Parts: sequence; C-alpha cells; structure tokens
Amino acid sequence: MCAPGCYEAVRRHLSRRGFLRGAAAGAAAFVATAEPNVGLAQPASFSRVVDLTHTLAPGFPTFTGAPYLKLEQRMFLDRDGYNVLEWTLLEHVGTHLDAPIHFANNAPSADRLSPASLVVPLAVIDVSGQAEADPDYQVLPSDVLAWERAHGPLPDNVCVAMNSGWDRHVATEMFRNADDRGVMHFPGFHADTAEFLIRERRVQGIAVDTLSLDHGRSKDFRTHTTWLPSGRWGLECVANLGQCPPKGATIVVGGPKIQGATGGPSRVFALL
Amino acid sequence: MCAPGCYEAVRRHLSRRGFLRGAAAGAAAFVATAEPNVGLAQPASFSRVVDLTHTLAPGFPTFTGAPYLKLEQRMFLDRDGYNVLEWTLLEHVGTHLDAPIHFANNAPSADRLSPASLVVPLAVIDVSGQAEADPDYQVLPSDVLAWERAHGPLPDNVCVAMNSGWDRHVATEMFRNADDRGVMHFPGFHADTAEFLIRERRVQGIAVDTLSLDHGRSKDFRTHTTWLPSGRWGLECVANLGQCPPKGATIVVGGPKIQGATGGPSRVFALL
Repeated sequence: MCAPGCYEAVRRHLSRRGFLRGAAAGAAAFVATAEPNVGLAQPASFSRVVDLTHTLAPGFPTFTGAPYLKLEQRMFLDRDGYNVLEWTLLEHVGTHLDAPIHFANNAPSADRLSPASLVVPLAVIDVSGQAEADPDYQVLPSDVLAWERAHGPLPDNVCVAMNSGWDRHVATEMFRNADDRGVMHFPGFHADTAEFLIRERRVQGIAVDTLSLDHGRSKDFRTHTTWLPSGRWGLECVANLGQCPPKGATIVVGGPKIQGATGGPSRVFALL
Repeated sequence: MCAPGCYEAVRRHLSRRGFLRGAAAGAAAFVATAEPNVGLAQPASFSRVVDLTHTLAPGFPTFTGAPYLKLEQRMFLDRDGYNVLEWTLLEHVGTHLDAPIHFANNAPSADRLSPASLVVPLAVIDVSGQAEADPDYQVLPSDVLAWERAHGPLPDNVCVAMNSGWDRHVATEMFRNADDRGVMHFPGFHADTAEFLIRERRVQGIAVDTLSLDHGRSKDFRTHTTWLPSGRWGLECVANLGQCPPKGATIVVGGPKIQGATGGPSRVFALL
C-alpha cells in the first residue's frame, strides 16, 4: 500500500488546503453536495452476478448486541391458503443501507435517494492484510491514493468499498470483537477519508464489510457524522467483496424505498 | 394483439399436448423445474436505470385492505445520536416478491433464490388497452405469442411482466377496485399463461403492476398455485413498466435475503 509517511504527507496537504477544518461541523446541517441524478458516467456491461448480501436471521450480529429482528409466521398455507411472515425490525440490521437522515434530520431518507445514485461503479480497496494485523485499522486517504496508483482515478459516482475480510467472521463473536470493557474492535473508514472523498472526488457511497462505517472502537461516530450529512449513503455488513475485482464492477444497492426510512436491510449485488 | 380466435387455437393446441391437465395438481408439491444457477444467457449492458419500485408507506393499498405496515421512530438524533425507525410488516406489501414458499411449504424461501435468477432479461407485455376496456383482463398465452411475433422468442431466464397501466392507480381506490360485494377488479396473469411459460419457455419470474399475480376477481389463486410451486418467483405492485422497452432491459430484483421469508418488500430496478 502507501509508503511509510505517505498518509502524513496527504494529511498535511489536506490541512494546508484547509478542508479538514470542516469536519468539526459534523452533522450540524444537511449539505446537499452529492448530485443525485448524475447517473452512470458511461455504459456498463456485465455477465455475472455476485451477491454482496448476508442472509439475515434473528441471530445476526448487531451494533449494540441487542436483537434487532423478530420473525413470526402469521399466515399458514394449510390454514389460510398461503404462508406469510411478519417482520419486526430496527432498520440498521443485516447487510443494510445508511441513508443521510440516519445522522442528519433534514437529509434524504432512503426512499429519497435517486435510483441513479444506487447503481454505480464499485471500487474495492483491499485492507485485509492491515485488518489482520490490526483489528482497529482505519482506511486512510493514502489507501485511496494507493488504489488510484494501481487502478487509475476513481470513476465518477463511484461506491468506495472497504474489503477488510471481516465478512468471514459474521457467524462468530469475532464480528463484533468486543473486549472485556465492551469496546468493539473491527476496521472502518477514517473520518479524514470520508472528508477526502467528499471534497476531492465524486463519490456516491461508501461500503464496509463490518458493523459500522466507523471503526469499532470509535466513540464519536465521526465518519458517520462527516459522511452522511453530506447527502451520501453508506452500506454496512456487506458480504463477498473478496469476490469482486478492485475495479470494473457495478454495485446495485437494493435499498428500501420506505417513506422516511433511515436505512434498512438491502439486497446488494455486484454486476461483473 | 392476437387475432380473434387465436387464444382458443393456442389453448386447443396446449390441451392436445395434454399439459394443461397438470394445472390441477396446483400447490401439491414443490417441483424444482426452474434452474436457479443458469445466470445470464449473454452479457448485458446498460446506461440508464428505471426504478420499478413504488414508495411504500403505511397507507399503501393491500390485498385484504387491512394495513400491513407500521413505522415507529425508536431512536432520535437529538436524544440518541442517530435516527432509527422500527418496521412491523406483513411481507406481501408494496412492490414485493412472492417466493415459491408463499404457496408451497417445501419450496424455496426468498433467501434461497439464486442471485442469478434475480438479475435477468425483462420482457414487458403491454395489455394496458385490454385492461382499460376490461379491468378483469387476464394475460393469455396468445398475448405472449403476439409479443414473440413482434420481438422474437422470449430470451432464456426472462422475467415476463404484465404492463396493464395499473400502477397509475396506486394512490386511489381504483388500485383495489373493489365492488359492492368486496370483489376486486384488476388484471393479472391467466393460469394457462403460467402453465404455458413453465412448460414451453424458460422463465425465471413473472411480474404484475397490480396487487396479485391472479386477476382481482380470482377466487382460487390458480395462477399463484400454478406458478410458485414450480420454484419460480413473482413480483407484485411493480411500478413504471411503461418506461421500459418491450425487450432489451435487464430487471434486478432486490428481494429480501431474510431467512425463511415468503417474499417481501423489494427494490426493483430495470437497467436499460
């Protein structure tokens, strides 16, 4: 990845340009900097589908550790003529969308995100080595720059995804990886990277294969409060990013179109 | 569409071949005739997205007329640091998937449908003229044959969609169109068409812009009981099919990947 010292060089550069100061404003106001109707920069083609969605069941790990999903069968084929379940859920469970309103009261809810912003190029940044060595790893601006050196500039309207390899832990305690004090340890995006992508690139969304856009030990949701109030979306608990190329796939975010939803379980595909 | 008498000719042909007799077996057993891992027959390309999903809110019309969705805000940004809603819903609400298990106990639930079966070519059969003249209209095998005369053979693994223009009624009583006795009147697929598509073509799913795969006045769910136990999926309350070409689009069915789900609210896109 980036040579030692590279991240600090980037940060100094950003600080000189003054844009890191904006991070302090956090969730104060919705800034509609994303352009929702931009559509695809160029035609995309595909011949294969990778499912980026975990199967969701009541035992799926959650951010707080409490259960977020209950399923009950309400109609039965033999008695009623057909089978129907009732779902009761808190929105941020399973492979799910974070809509801007999750962290900013007047920002778009899930149903207000434009369809064009949900079908976009996918860039996968592999930090599985770093995460293996350090479960508190945060994706840095230097990781983005290293990706660009290898693969060219981020395409416009891209979704930038962190592949930390964490999806393989989904069935075990390692997914939350809480220590004796209850502090979780899993990778996420550094808030400076959120800021960098907002200011310096044209990005529609970011995605992680962990429980939070922020790394697990974050106390202040600073990546969330930087990213979502800008009008952009996030995806959490994404699966199978390791089956996607670093560049060239299209992500289809089947987010809920439920009025006022702050996000929710989503069907997410990569088209290769 | 088909010349007068054409449908009867088709039906006589089918009857001679004996395959309409199979319809009586209905939901008796799950027959795995769909091939879930076939994938796309050929690479697809696109440059535009059409959202085939209605916005879902508690007042969305339902098959029984009872409310199927409740939304309550459980977490508040000012108090809790972020906004989260709780959803309580019966699965078959809004633009939604019918999984085979909805009408056959041992058939696949929504989470078991292969991703490749959910990203497939889309064929749109326009019966809006017929539906305008007769709200009880049913899509007939002759409508499929007329589509093929105009556009060539149905592609393999296709989703066949009925565009009856009914999505424009979604905000009014006309969507259910119940008469004084409570009998609904809206278009759907004829069970013979389901049978025809199962036996004579390679079809992954059927889609309607109304509340049911069956037409509204059906008393026996015969289209459901023919189609779903064959292992194929259905989509109901689809929007904006009129913005899609008859042929050439790809449908992406963002169905719920929830364990055991009999279907559920789905984000559905057409890629053009």
